[in-house]
Amino acid sequence: MTINLKNFLYDKNKLSKMGEFQDLKTIDGLEVSSISADLYKNGRDDLTLFYFKDGANYASITTSSSITSEFISWNNKSNKKSIKALLVNTKNANTFTGKQGIDSLDAISKNLSRILTLKESKTEEGVSEPVKVKDLMFASTGVIGEIFPLEKINDSLQELVNKLRSDQNKLIWIKTASAMMTTDTKPKLAYEEINIGNKIIKIAGIAKGSGMIAPNLATMLSFIFTDADIAPNLLKTLIKKVANNSFNAITVDSDQSTNDMLTIFSTKKIKIGQNRNMSDPIIQKFEMALKNVCLNLAKQVVVDGEGAKKFITVKIINSRSQISAKKIAFSIANSPLVKTAVAGEDPNWGRIVMGIGKSGEKVDVNKLIIKFGEFTVAEKGKISETYNEEKLKEYMQWDSILIEVNLNNGNDSFECYTCDFTHDYIDINADYRN
Amino acid sequence: MTINLKNFLYDKNKLSKMGEFQDLKTIDGLEVSSISADLYKNGRDDLTLFYFKDGANYASITTSSSITSEFISWNNKSNKKSIKALLVNTKNANTFTGKQGIDSLDAISKNLSRILTLKESKTEEGVSEPVKVKDLMFASTGVIGEIFPLEKINDSLQELVNKLRSDQNKLIWIKTASAMMTTDTKPKLAYEEINIGNKIIKIAGIAKGSGMIAPNLATMLSFIFTDADIAPNLLKTLIKKVANNSFNAITVDSDQSTNDMLTIFSTKKIKIGQNRNMSDPIIQKFEMALKNVCLNLAKQVVVDGEGAKKFITVKIINSRSQISAKKIAFSIANSPLVKTAVAGEDPNWGRIVMGIGKSGEKVDVNKLIIKFGEFTVAEKGKISETYNEEKLKEYMQWDSILIEVNLNNGNDSFECYTCDFTHDYIDINADYRN
Repeated sequence: MTINLKNFLYDKNKLSKMGEFQDLKTIDGLEVSSISADLYKNGRDDLTLFYFKDGANYASITTSSSITSEFISWNNKSNKKSIKALLVNTKNANTFTGKQGIDSLDAISKNLSRILTLKESKTEEGVSEPVKVKDLMFASTGVIGEIFPLEKINDSLQELVNKLRSDQNKLIWIKTASAMMTTDTKPKLAYEEINIGNKIIKIAGIAKGSGMIAPNLATMLSFIFTDADIAPNLLKTLIKKVANNSFNAITVDSDQSTNDMLTIFSTKKIKIGQNRNMSDPIIQKFEMALKNVCLNLAKQVVVDGEGAKKFITVKIINSRSQISAKKIAFSIANSPLVKTAVAGEDPNWGRIVMGIGKSGEKVDVNKLIIKFGEFTVAEKGKISETYNEEKLKEYMQWDSILIEVNLNNGNDSFECYTCDFTHDYIDINADYRN
Repeated sequence: MTINLKNFLYDKNKLSKMGEFQDLKTIDGLEVSSISADLYKNGRDDLTLFYFKDGANYASITTSSSITSEFISWNNKSNKKSIKALLVNTKNANTFTGKQGIDSLDAISKNLSRILTLKESKTEEGVSEPVKVKDLMFASTGVIGEIFPLEKINDSLQELVNKLRSDQNKLIWIKTASAMMTTDTKPKLAYEEINIGNKIIKIAGIAKGSGMIAPNLATMLSFIFTDADIAPNLLKTLIKKVANNSFNAITVDSDQSTNDMLTIFSTKKIKIGQNRNMSDPIIQKFEMALKNVCLNLAKQVVVDGEGAKKFITVKIINSRSQISAKKIAFSIANSPLVKTAVAGEDPNWGRIVMGIGKSGEKVDVNKLIIKFGEFTVAEKGKISETYNEEKLKEYMQWDSILIEVNLNNGNDSFECYTCDFTHDYIDINADYRN
């Protein structure tokens, strides 16, 4: 039976459709606010604060680029285990900004810690600990190499803190995710909840990313929030494992950002018991839900890939190893010739053959089976005897295209996600400075 | 002093300008012919024969793709040292054609050897050796996976042999190079000659290639002919060395063909003495001329890159090693974001930073100097103090753009060549089946 995916950009199962947002709920212990710091000079929100009243455990994965944004080294300077706030700006990447970029983060962190301490001393009963500079984290996205807008951000901090709110309904999550966007056309949100005994654990995630998207960590920026009390080490193991088949399994243009960061925060509000580990059923349940959130967000990034009209799944099965499958999958997914063929709705399977070959991985041509959706196009070292151009051309008109390569030389597999390559990608990138 | 390259697609020095052809001369011992075998069904020439009356030494480099065309394995079947003829067809790649593709080459080789033997027996005085199947070579380019047009080619062989001619003027070379084209918009020719004592040695080269161009051996097909009598082993050493900084230093779209082949043929007509080696001054002079031919052809492939409007040179200097420089050069040259910025005439040097970073090579951000042409855009870890947007915007309007990255951490360097990424690339590739 053929499932007609024509009107769906990706699997309906567990994934939200384009333009439809899941109901994200309030994460206890988290307060958020977004405002315009006039970075975009058009009134749109461009500065966001995530504040954890009682602190949060966290774990991060950052870009593997050998040149990284100043905020990444700043965050790594102090060996924090728990943080109080994350400040995110868009429009300026704070990369290749030199001393001015680092000094700006020093100045902003001093100011923000002062304002947050003041806020806490007003609202807390008794005397609370002051918020320290090292309790803060930063993330930036935008243009590389421009002077970092220190003053505009500093001048906005008080208002940003004033506007913090602890109830996060759907509109607030959309507002927050929107305030991180650059060339994104849509904010990206995902949500899961699981029951542990009589407790409900929530996982809410937001992401931004559209171009300069390639593994590893093709996320640009993504932040996941949970109320489950999970230790930093376990958070790290979880996020690394889950990223492998979500944020590290997508590509838009094979270009990797200097600013990629994926962070999970735990507000520690729901106790799930101490000394949990990866083989614990509760953690496995959490891992599955976290994977759904991350995969959902990662797919949304691809769907919103610059200029993308189609969502492409490249599935390599029966390979010698997962590494080999991954290499072949990305060799196909990063091929401009494959991506333009899909844009042109052309079932040009010769380019899949080219993509497999240029990976350099040894394959047995006579064992290969190449399929578009459920249609076999090549097998036994040549065009399939069941090849049906008419049916294929109809299939290529769908919004979601599956390219499956069966190597028939092992038991491993890997699936990655990309989008087609269109005129709009070029239009967006031929003059992106705004 | 600024050399205004605006109207030149690449260095004037030793390189032909777009649309201008060098005068290629006759290589003694070579006969050529091209005809239409109706492969393209529009009357254009699509089948070419190169015939060496007295045999030719040769050396080949072929694609490093793990999936290769049937002609590559066919050529490698017999361990030939000298050959009599090369048959080249366009339109059909003879890749993923299975048994039908191999059987076709067997049938054609039998037929062609018979026809050539007949030709020789008519023209030779006395009885000549019959032309053997193993004296033949094939090359194909075009669409992957379609049934190989055995009959059309077989039916054209007699006419092809009848039309062989030994005088090769400029028009004949253009006709021959044109008969190999696929999405190429121009035939690609290059020529050099050197004096060895009172002898003139000629080197004539042709190439085809426009898309699916990436190292290694981003040539698709290129054939070099010389009358100098050079042994096969030495030819192999020469062509491998020269390819490194020519055909292996270009990229159009990072996609690599299953059919790439670069071959040099020596008709042995001009004796240069026995037992020459790479350190011999005569061979060094030959190597320099051969390099000019190959670099010229390689640059022409880039200039004719699918949809290309601009020629881009990426030059990495003062690197730790040549391997490191090459990795960074191609990381930049293969970046869709860099290539679309150049298409948009946007001096977006942040994307050069991204390209350096995603190579994974360790660099010292504070030592980096990035230049567009002679304009420094970034140094000391930030935007250059001499950055002049107006001058840069003017520079970006030129047809030939130089991107120079000075790593300041060693003495090695590498230069590679690419083109910009335009709407036309997508138009050409979104529906390429003809």
